[in-house]
Amino acid sequence: MPKTSPKKTARRRPVQLTQDLTRARFDKLAKPLRTQLLGLQDQLKAEDFSVLLLFVGSAMAGKNESLNLIAEWLDPRWIITRAYGPPTAEESQRPEYWRYWRDLPPKGQIGLFAGSWYHKPVHDLANGEIGRRKFFRALDEVRAFERTLAADGTLILKFWLHMDKAALKKRMKALEKDNANSWRVGDLDWQHLKQHSKLRKAHERAANYTDAGDGRWIRVDGNDPRRRALTILKTVRDALTAHIKARRKRRRQVLKAAQIMDRIRRDRLTDISANLKKLERQSQAAAAKKPSSPGAQTGAGSGLILDRLDLSLHLGTEEYQRELKERRADLGMRFRRQHFAGKSAIILFEGPDAAGKGGAIRRLTASMDARDYRVIQVAAPSEEERAQHYLWRFWKHLPQAGRLTIFDRSWYGRVLVERVEGFAQPGEWMRAYDEIVDFERQLTSRGLVVVKFWIHISKDEQFRRFKERETISYKKWKLTAEDWRNREKWNEYSVAVDEMVARTSTELAPWTLVEGNDKKFARIKVMDTVCQALRRAS
Amino acid sequence: MPKTSPKKTARRRPVQLTQDLTRARFDKLAKPLRTQLLGLQDQLKAEDFSVLLLFVGSAMAGKNESLNLIAEWLDPRWIITRAYGPPTAEESQRPEYWRYWRDLPPKGQIGLFAGSWYHKPVHDLANGEIGRRKFFRALDEVRAFERTLAADGTLILKFWLHMDKAALKKRMKALEKDNANSWRVGDLDWQHLKQHSKLRKAHERAANYTDAGDGRWIRVDGNDPRRRALTILKTVRDALTAHIKARRKRRRQVLKAAQIMDRIRRDRLTDISANLKKLERQSQAAAAKKPSSPGAQTGAGSGLILDRLDLSLHLGTEEYQRELKERRADLGMRFRRQHFAGKSAIILFEGPDAAGKGGAIRRLTASMDARDYRVIQVAAPSEEERAQHYLWRFWKHLPQAGRLTIFDRSWYGRVLVERVEGFAQPGEWMRAYDEIVDFERQLTSRGLVVVKFWIHISKDEQFRRFKERETISYKKWKLTAEDWRNREKWNEYSVAVDEMVARTSTELAPWTLVEGNDKKFARIKVMDTVCQALRRAS
Repeated sequence: MPKTSPKKTARRRPVQLTQDLTRARFDKLAKPLRTQLLGLQDQLKAEDFSVLLLFVGSAMAGKNESLNLIAEWLDPRWIITRAYGPPTAEESQRPEYWRYWRDLPPKGQIGLFAGSWYHKPVHDLANGEIGRRKFFRALDEVRAFERTLAADGTLILKFWLHMDKAALKKRMKALEKDNANSWRVGDLDWQHLKQHSKLRKAHERAANYTDAGDGRWIRVDGNDPRRRALTILKTVRDALTAHIKARRKRRRQVLKAAQIMDRIRRDRLTDISANLKKLERQSQAAAAKKPSSPGAQTGAGSGLILDRLDLSLHLGTEEYQRELKERRADLGMRFRRQHFAGKSAIILFEGPDAAGKGGAIRRLTASMDARDYRVIQVAAPSEEERAQHYLWRFWKHLPQAGRLTIFDRSWYGRVLVERVEGFAQPGEWMRAYDEIVDFERQLTSRGLVVVKFWIHISKDEQFRRFKERETISYKKWKLTAEDWRNREKWNEYSVAVDEMVARTSTELAPWTLVEGNDKKFARIKVMDTVCQALRRAS
Repeated sequence: MPKTSPKKTARRRPVQLTQDLTRARFDKLAKPLRTQLLGLQDQLKAEDFSVLLLFVGSAMAGKNESLNLIAEWLDPRWIITRAYGPPTAEESQRPEYWRYWRDLPPKGQIGLFAGSWYHKPVHDLANGEIGRRKFFRALDEVRAFERTLAADGTLILKFWLHMDKAALKKRMKALEKDNANSWRVGDLDWQHLKQHSKLRKAHERAANYTDAGDGRWIRVDGNDPRRRALTILKTVRDALTAHIKARRKRRRQVLKAAQIMDRIRRDRLTDISANLKKLERQSQAAAAKKPSSPGAQTGAGSGLILDRLDLSLHLGTEEYQRELKERRADLGMRFRRQHFAGKSAIILFEGPDAAGKGGAIRRLTASMDARDYRVIQVAAPSEEERAQHYLWRFWKHLPQAGRLTIFDRSWYGRVLVERVEGFAQPGEWMRAYDEIVDFERQLTSRGLVVVKFWIHISKDEQFRRFKERETISYKKWKLTAEDWRNREKWNEYSVAVDEMVARTSTELAPWTLVEGNDKKFARIKVMDTVCQALRRAS
């Protein structure tokens, strides 16, 4: 947390733009800038990152004009322009950042945002609606959000447009008198003028606290529109030039680092594999002595959490039917109640191929009204999704008030398949743990119930199910060559799951590991866990 | 309009499924069906159409169970399941069909819809909320919607699940007593039971009126769940088999027809081109005699509407500045008022390359609060968009209440670039006129203001602007090789525009042709037209 006082900061970045710039002089300075920016925009299209330009501060200080200027000067096909007011009906039913995630520019493009995630904390503090503690907590969320985007490569530049009170008042009076522009000055603007120094102080605090490498603040004097424009355009040009260069250098480094990491990972895996094989041999030897102990079929001493599961747990048919009926009644009522209370929930399923995720999901949805839930089958991302942060496609699917979204596979793909198959660089999946914890914290802090299942089966049981799928005509479609390939990486997945559970099981969004060798047992455990989670939330 | 009475129809499709089917017998019949359906689903993935299965009728008659059965039996990765209740906040701010468009399955996939566009008209009629006239008008919209989808290849099967009143009552009582299912029976269901015969009659009417080739009705007796399941599964299998075959045959025919159409078109174009060239020569000869008449630069006798525009219209700088100021003041106030009244608007721009669309849009948006509008740059469709009906991506962008969406190019691409470049088959762009008129009627009937501009310039003026773009550094990006290529097809575009304007200019969504050789004149005409449209709407 940078502890510099507002005064000190002001001294550090002196603003002395009082001279007027003639139109002719501006044109002369601006023309080459425009050509350079267009050239940079053209380069950007081939880059693997997006650019986010934020304009905050008083509308009168030129927030919208600045945004329009850039939109006008550059190629509009690669620009997304958004301005935010109070949340609409559909926005207020989702976590606060939902609307920003939805609007993020894809890689190679520029997003121009007027108004942003800074508006609420700054105004709430200035109005006295929140104290400093809540203010800084809100800014922590801002930092986490910007860090997530910046880690993905996004260049974030935040322009704070400000004017002194007297000049602002003069400008507002002039606008009010002008027929063409009088609509621009509303009651709210006069109210903001009254709070001018409070708002300024809050802005100053927010800027100091969030002026990180992930998103730099640029304070721009709004008094002189031409100076203002030049400052913004030059800053964008310089920052974009530097960022393109830095990203290219970084890509080379990442490639090198990945090779090193890969070697380390493979060494570690060899250790674990050797260990697992040893344990397997031991347990086989043990089983040969005591053939009636199916629980010991994998070595429980590998140190991996999955191997500590007792996969021999099972339910008899009668018991299952009785439990199923009870759970269904309970779930049905709870879902209805939750629906009418406007509470949303997310249930996600992960697990090896053929673990029984689909079956468990169907047992859940059988207790629900089809209008209240959606099942999202997560497969490889589409072209549009690949051009965005990996969390973007999940934000898109967040349920509205009172609805439930079930994910059949989820954002954990980042630290499972993308890690194991090398689709994500080590740096990428390593920081994903924190990003995911942060993402889920945003959901739960909005009151969403988050339930996460890892349904586990033993390697032998998977083999048995694959074979079964091969022989039963209407189950054949479920088995692909990929499933057999994934199976070869069983140990790598075991290590990944171990780390995933350890690093992303939080109090509000804990993992539930389900012993899945017996489908009946697994289904009841899933239903029971969901019941409990809903009960706790209501 | 099929005039058959309900009775007659009932006779035509006798429903005599009273026998019970044992579980064992059902399994024996169902297993091969399942394998066949999975095979068909696999074939479907490579086809160029989607499948829509609608389940309507009483929830108790097995609407959701039927949907769940199919979802369970097939590969869930290629299935979209949706169930509809009353419109949510975000849905009720858009035209009625917005939510259905949003949920349509992409090509190669199956959409399972429980509840649908039939719910409202049927229930409104049964409740006495609307009379028969409004009922049939609503059904006309239904037919237009289904026709649009069917023309795109979609296979639509509509299952009407019904039960007689006594059986329904018995089932509801049984469910109510059952702890696991009591939540399924609500007050609304008892109310529907009271209206049973009215609802049934309304359903019957709706089914008769909309049982077209575009979407067949299948009446299913809901009394016996196993019979019901078999009927549905067999129907899907047979219809899908036939549809795949028919589409393949059709594709071959379309290909042949396209070759013929193409020859006819080329012949017609040769005629028009010759005519245009002759007129050009004549006007050049005339201009040589009277050099002071720029209005006659293209032959006004080609018979094409664009050639009747007086492109010599222009505005002096002073007049322009005065008009601009006035229009901006007017527009600013009108947009604000419209925003607060919750009225949405769509403004679209079409025109040749370099016609000045972007400039006109910027003059409009300068009068608006950036939070109130969005500019959509329409380029080639993405992978996701290509897998849908061509109107799908525009439905996606419909503004919410009080907002404005500006389209820089639009759905008219279907009858312009897609027609001229041959991206759409003749049959496809030919029926697009009606589809577009219908689409816009849905918008205007929801109170949306629709304003459509064709900004026109002469071929000479375009050449001048292209040359200018080539020499000014910051305008270079605007000019691509494609622009020069498009220019070669000037005459083909003229013919396409002529037909477009003639066939899609309606009272509520008329085309405004803008004389664009003088940018100042064009901009003022655009602003003025928008002002007038907003005035009429308020």
